[in-house]
Amino acid sequence: MHIDHIGIAVEDIEKAVETYENLLDEECYKREVVEDQQVDTAFFKTGESKVELLGPTDPNSVIRKYVDKQGEGMHHVAFEVEDIHAELDRLRDEGFTVLNEKPKQGADNKLVAFVHPKDNHGVLVELCQSQD
Amino acid sequence: MHIDHIGIAVEDIEKAVETYENLLDEECYKREVVEDQQVDTAFFKTGESKVELLGPTDPNSVIRKYVDKQGEGMHHVAFEVEDIHAELDRLRDEGFTVLNEKPKQGADNKLVAFVHPKDNHGVLVELCQSQD
Repeated sequence: MHIDHIGIAVEDIEKAVETYENLLDEECYKREVVEDQQVDTAFFKTGESKVELLGPTDPNSVIRKYVDKQGEGMHHVAFEVEDIHAELDRLRDEGFTVLNEKPKQGADNKLVAFVHPKDNHGVLVELCQSQD
Repeated sequence: MHIDHIGIAVEDIEKAVETYENLLDEECYKREVVEDQQVDTAFFKTGESKVELLGPTDPNSVIRKYVDKQGEGMHHVAFEVEDIHAELDRLRDEGFTVLNEKPKQGADNKLVAFVHPKDNHGVLVELCQSQD
């Protein structure tokens, strides 16, 4: 598996896009709202991986709650896998707490599922699989 | 620039190595103590990027203080650049707060320097350059 992206939770995605364009010296190549997760996303290419900014679109967004509680910052790391169902089965067998019974539709046309941070020394881990 | 690694601050590096070997289904390929930063590091290959676990070796370690204050979790993201001096000059000109006047010797035989999280929406950013 490789790092598909890191997800960064931000207060104001427009400001954050400007900051990361300056930081990375790279233009944002995609914006996408994921309605059912109430997040606005912005992507930057950084080699084979991406930086994904995540801003809330609603007071009930998980990103709104995250930023209110912990402040802005790194929210998760996502690893691309070839077969997300097999990988989730493997992790469940190893004793990891998978937060989604089944993978769900995420940004960037991927199937995604999350592993609880308590099992990963505080890191929220996303697994993702590209869809044809 | 591409993501060279993400750094994860942990309480007990031996336990964390075991966890990440299970999570990533991949063996740790390098252990290295960085004496002047009082950290014990462990690396995992994940595509062109790496996962770096960081454990404290001393009560005064920055990682000890980080874990005491914030708990375990993602500590920084590192971007590999070709010319770290030029990149730091560019970022200073853009108004970013570079935490090191000059790049210093980091783990993995790299020159490294950090950009303050306040400028990056809560993310501690490392720039690194491989040395021949």
